Amino acid sequence: MKIAIVGFGVVGQALVRLLRERSGELYRRHGFAPRIVAAIDTRGAALSAQGLDIAALLRTKASDGTVATIPDCGVSRVDNEQVIAECGAHVLVEATPSSLRDPQPAIRHLKAAFRAGLHVVSVNKVPLAVAFPGLRELADYNRVMFRFSGTVGAGLPVLALAQQCALGDEILSVRAVLNGTTNYILWRMHEAGLDFAAALAEAVRLGYAETDPSADVDGVDTAMKTVIFANVVLDRAATLADVQVAGIRDLPRERIATAAAAGRRVKLLAELGEKLRVGPQEIEAHGPLDVPANLNAVSLSLRHGGEVTLRGPGAGGVETATGVLRDLLDIWHALGSAP
Amino acid sequence: MKIAIVGFGVVGQALVRLLRERSGELYRRHGFAPRIVAAIDTRGAALSAQGLDIAALLRTKASDGTVATIPDCGVSRVDNEQVIAECGAHVLVEATPSSLRDPQPAIRHLKAAFRAGLHVVSVNKVPLAVAFPGLRELADYNRVMFRFSGTVGAGLPVLALAQQCALGDEILSVRAVLNGTTNYILWRMHEAGLDFAAALAEAVRLGYAETDPSADVDGVDTAMKTVIFANVVLDRAATLADVQVAGIRDLPRERIATAAAAGRRVKLLAELGEKLRVGPQEIEAHGPLDVPANLNAVSLSLRHGGEVTLRGPGAGGVETATGVLRDLLDIWHALGSAP
Repeated sequence: MKIAIVGFGVVGQALVRLLRERSGELYRRHGFAPRIVAAIDTRGAALSAQGLDIAALLRTKASDGTVATIPDCGVSRVDNEQVIAECGAHVLVEATPSSLRDPQPAIRHLKAAFRAGLHVVSVNKVPLAVAFPGLRELADYNRVMFRFSGTVGAGLPVLALAQQCALGDEILSVRAVLNGTTNYILWRMHEAGLDFAAALAEAVRLGYAETDPSADVDGVDTAMKTVIFANVVLDRAATLADVQVAGIRDLPRERIATAAAAGRRVKLLAELGEKLRVGPQEIEAHGPLDVPANLNAVSLSLRHGGEVTLRGPGAGGVETATGVLRDLLDIWHALGSAP
Repeated sequence: MKIAIVGFGVVGQALVRLLRERSGELYRRHGFAPRIVAAIDTRGAALSAQGLDIAALLRTKASDGTVATIPDCGVSRVDNEQVIAECGAHVLVEATPSSLRDPQPAIRHLKAAFRAGLHVVSVNKVPLAVAFPGLRELADYNRVMFRFSGTVGAGLPVLALAQQCALGDEILSVRAVLNGTTNYILWRMHEAGLDFAAALAEAVRLGYAETDPSADVDGVDTAMKTVIFANVVLDRAATLADVQVAGIRDLPRERIATAAAAGRRVKLLAELGEKLRVGPQEIEAHGPLDVPANLNAVSLSLRHGGEVTLRGPGAGGVETATGVLRDLLDIWHALGSAP
């Protein structure tokens, strides 16, 4: 299977590393022998119909900050949509950063792929959060597969689990901690008595938060994941505008102390019931959603099966890359393991 | 799709009730319109090529203790294997009780189904625990599907989750609480300070434990689930003989109190590492495996994705029936939604 990657940052690099490390096992267990025929970053692309050398990709990206300088394969300043359509890939991995300020480039990448008959694995949440119903329709119309496991829960198979539960049972409502950065901040405010600014600074220092942490602390990242979950699992044609969002910026330390005194914890919760809501909420201490550090947790309330909860790491480059690999194998098997 | 059910106890009855309740939605979402063409219990069978009336099945079972007395459809004392082979079903649901003392009837049901070209959904753990590798081979040889979601975790999609994780990542080891009855007993010994006998009596009174609770308290039920998990998810051709098993019978109350004083809890744990082991173990209080009452929890240690834990109810008739329904829909879609 030939793969094109647009966006060669943390996740893109973790993915090619994972494909290289596990190549023997992936071929033995799944007959899966992927080739990267295009890697596109902000300064250009590397192209090879025979498959790019993964070591060269990683080395050049590290030394030059781009893959466009790889001898023979590198090209500066390319038209991304043209490369996607013409590189001969079967699948596009969309791994550019999720920026709500400008969703258009990522949306154009997906549309170019769908129209050229490429299946798509998106890591970027933004196109899905602002235009999911239309993108799914375009994928169906072009008879290609559209997967995005890594957008919710990173490597944690949140969407797959919920789809399994929805098959045999009925999901009545969902409560979830979907943002590791804010969970870390709230956890440290409780555990160490830090105020918001100190906890945020610590999260930035440890690499859990971006230098501009707005999308996390203002609840927007959680809201995007909520929209994706609602569309995929609950069959609701929702977009970001349908989510009532509050963040945790400058949440007073006292609010957390008061909750703790009552045996409760404050979490940035996504709630998917009749309405879609994101905001700080109190939950029971030591209950299923009370996860420490930067973990995620998703709790499904089922008609017959009671409360089912999945918890684990919900962020990180290599974790997200394992989600992308799941999607690639899913597509590979759905194609009858060829090409 | 035509379905035969052998074993019309709690799970069998919950399944037909679920199929009836959700028939509109199952047809609308999946094009799935199952018919029960055979229901077999210990006294006979009810047969109808057009599909049995579910209300009559449930009513007659309740009043007469068998379905063999339904007018026109009922037959006393049948040869189960002959009925399975000749009833015209596409799928057999094996829902007879899991009895390790006599695995043969259930194994014969599965073999009769495989040889006659029926796909199989097994709720019965015993054939899988004693003969999984051979049964899988026979299913493959006859080119039929073999599913058994309900055998581990009842409605909780334990096997499906682990298979998802194994796709993108590597499972290094597993620790799990897989038996609700013993978890309830240990939880009550901790919470209420009961001794083993009193906690067991309470579990029996609440319907969590069988009148003969040996399979639960001696760890055999957990060991059977461990074998199934090891075969399906970890690709190990294990049988019950490969599991080192200890139970919790007559566990002294002091052991639990000593653990609690050190911030720990005693659980009947399944451990799948280099060896397969079942026995009472101490775990961290309030950690991912510290689930209350009769819940189950499964914790996967992943090479890249850290520790991923699923928790929820892991027993019960209707819960198990939702697992069977997942398997039926899985088969239905794998067949291209026909027949």
